[in-house]
Amino acid sequence: MYNEKMYKLGSNRSVIRDLFEYGKKLAAEKGEENVYDFSLGNPNVPAPEEVRQSLEKLISFPDSTVIHGYTSAQGDFTVRKTISDYINERYSAGMTPDLIYMTAGAAASLSITLSALKEDNDEFIVFAPFFPEYGVFIGNTGAKTVVIGPGENMSLNLTEFESKITENTKGIIINSPNNPSGVVYTETQIKALCAVLESKSKKYGHPIFVICDEPYREIVYDGITVPYLMNYYKDTIVCYSYSKSLSLPGERIGYIAVNPECTDAENVYYAVCGAGRSLGYVCAPSLFQRVVADCIRCKGDIDAYKRNRDLLCNALEDYGYDFVKPEGAFYLFVKALEPDAKAFSDRAKKLGLLLVPSDSFGVKGYVRISYCVSYDMIKRSLPLFKTLAESYAE
Amino acid sequence: MYNEKMYKLGSNRSVIRDLFEYGKKLAAEKGEENVYDFSLGNPNVPAPEEVRQSLEKLISFPDSTVIHGYTSAQGDFTVRKTISDYINERYSAGMTPDLIYMTAGAAASLSITLSALKEDNDEFIVFAPFFPEYGVFIGNTGAKTVVIGPGENMSLNLTEFESKITENTKGIIINSPNNPSGVVYTETQIKALCAVLESKSKKYGHPIFVICDEPYREIVYDGITVPYLMNYYKDTIVCYSYSKSLSLPGERIGYIAVNPECTDAENVYYAVCGAGRSLGYVCAPSLFQRVVADCIRCKGDIDAYKRNRDLLCNALEDYGYDFVKPEGAFYLFVKALEPDAKAFSDRAKKLGLLLVPSDSFGVKGYVRISYCVSYDMIKRSLPLFKTLAESYAE
Repeated sequence: MYNEKMYKLGSNRSVIRDLFEYGKKLAAEKGEENVYDFSLGNPNVPAPEEVRQSLEKLISFPDSTVIHGYTSAQGDFTVRKTISDYINERYSAGMTPDLIYMTAGAAASLSITLSALKEDNDEFIVFAPFFPEYGVFIGNTGAKTVVIGPGENMSLNLTEFESKITENTKGIIINSPNNPSGVVYTETQIKALCAVLESKSKKYGHPIFVICDEPYREIVYDGITVPYLMNYYKDTIVCYSYSKSLSLPGERIGYIAVNPECTDAENVYYAVCGAGRSLGYVCAPSLFQRVVADCIRCKGDIDAYKRNRDLLCNALEDYGYDFVKPEGAFYLFVKALEPDAKAFSDRAKKLGLLLVPSDSFGVKGYVRISYCVSYDMIKRSLPLFKTLAESYAE
Repeated sequence: MYNEKMYKLGSNRSVIRDLFEYGKKLAAEKGEENVYDFSLGNPNVPAPEEVRQSLEKLISFPDSTVIHGYTSAQGDFTVRKTISDYINERYSAGMTPDLIYMTAGAAASLSITLSALKEDNDEFIVFAPFFPEYGVFIGNTGAKTVVIGPGENMSLNLTEFESKITENTKGIIINSPNNPSGVVYTETQIKALCAVLESKSKKYGHPIFVICDEPYREIVYDGITVPYLMNYYKDTIVCYSYSKSLSLPGERIGYIAVNPECTDAENVYYAVCGAGRSLGYVCAPSLFQRVVADCIRCKGDIDAYKRNRDLLCNALEDYGYDFVKPEGAFYLFVKALEPDAKAFSDRAKKLGLLLVPSDSFGVKGYVRISYCVSYDMIKRSLPLFKTLAESYAE
């Protein structure tokens, strides 16, 4: 009568969304001040003032049919040119507007890219811990998801990676800074990864694509540099989103950039255009295409996230929690104090702490803490993290 | 290396887009005043002033994280409630917010609905003339597209329809007012259609869904009423878009409404939610969700389209063209003056008239004229339509 798989995807909410809904219910019962919701990656930092200024300017434009009208399916040319120039300025990537495709955010970027590439029997590799929706997007194309377990300190496990590449491997998804661990993969690791990819591409006689999911690129701390994959590996496709960097997650705006050095780059780009069309994406939201071009050099208040990270990390270290200090994104991935992450999350829940158990991220025994919340809430939550730790010491 | 089907969809632009791009090139060569582009359905009527006012209000809201943040995947509850109330006010449909799913426009609405319903061996029926992308969206689910030829005066051909329903028919797409003919299916026809559907659903022991693609619902002339399918047939899903009614085609905002009377309505809705998730639609653009709720009672200047229609129809009738006078939308579907629509369109092109040949709409021997253009351009184009007709009389 209807599609059973879609029904399941729609009726079984993701663990993250489930916890978030639980939090809203709990807040209604116990009062908002007694719920510490660390579940969602919804930025609490406001959009930069330049976003409002750009919107104000655009909506006062006399001809609304230009501002709100269809753009070309790939996106407005001037917007693509602005983005392409900026990519070249930062990474000398030789990008052109004709290899940029504007999208409705990172999820759209990934879905479209995967559909554009997918052929019969294809497999895509993801590195744990990973954003759970990767499995959904890959599943939608009919391809197989191959999971690589985490390396030391949540780095890339390159030994397992090398052993799991087959002739059917079409591509891999790299997400750095990583959701949920906050880890930024080092240049040394990236170079080693690319060496494996090059040798395997050669062995199997076809490119293995790197799909870079980069919504957290701008959110890094301590002056760290995130390697830009196009500079290391030719068959790279970047899936970018402004959701986190400009605090616009609901507006659904991002892009796909195909590396000019990519094998058959132009045809891959056409496949991207076709996949966007096929999935019902007519064009990316037109007003926000122009907003992100206006705000190409802007970022939200990254320092606010850094203050949150430091407060949380210092306290949790004191209480004896085990974690890798995040260098980017706004997530802390903490070892649960018992083997079962769900049981640990449930015990935390009783104290009002909403922490996402790690199983759906492809790793057992951890919880994700989203610290894109108010400094004050983190501060007030610390005694509860202490109580939680002590409850296991007893 | 990449998906061949997607490559083809991306590299072979639709006939409509092709003509539009040709027009831009021609304008650069011959001057804009010598190109009469009737190719695209991009509204020329500005968005209502209330849209600007709503945007202005929303962007001055102090907390940008509320306005630009994620909404729930189904859409903001207050927005869904506003839409649901409005549907009940107009159509007494018994709608609830929990059966409304906000989308990124009509193409997204259709893609999501088709994916939500599609099972193995499914077929979806479309009535010619039809919007060519229907075939793309149905094709993406892996289902088969079954085309019903046009009835008299571009009405529904119910005899052919009845004969082509099989046990694999999962649903049909109804588009009224119709793109490309501008025809509004009469209540008599709708009732007859529903009678066929009821008898066939019974015969095959499963519902046959009606998917109503309704971007042109508000654009009707001469006080005509467009039957609301939910009032006639229980297994109805409405795919609505604000692209044309509020002149916001680039902003990608619309909704899916599942009839409360639909078989297993709640589960069908969950399948819609799952399909949205699977195709990478995280939530509909958040700012414009709120704008359309603010502007729920607004419309663009429909009279402007009516003036265009009348000017064009009166003149073309004088020149001897054959067509059904449109009662809605902003398209005129005119019989070509030779059997080959493409050859006719090519001859018109030489005069600077860009008319879309009908083959991709599933009908031979017609052209579509989009009259969502300036009155002045239509006026200036009339002598050329006359010349074109005369060139065939010679």
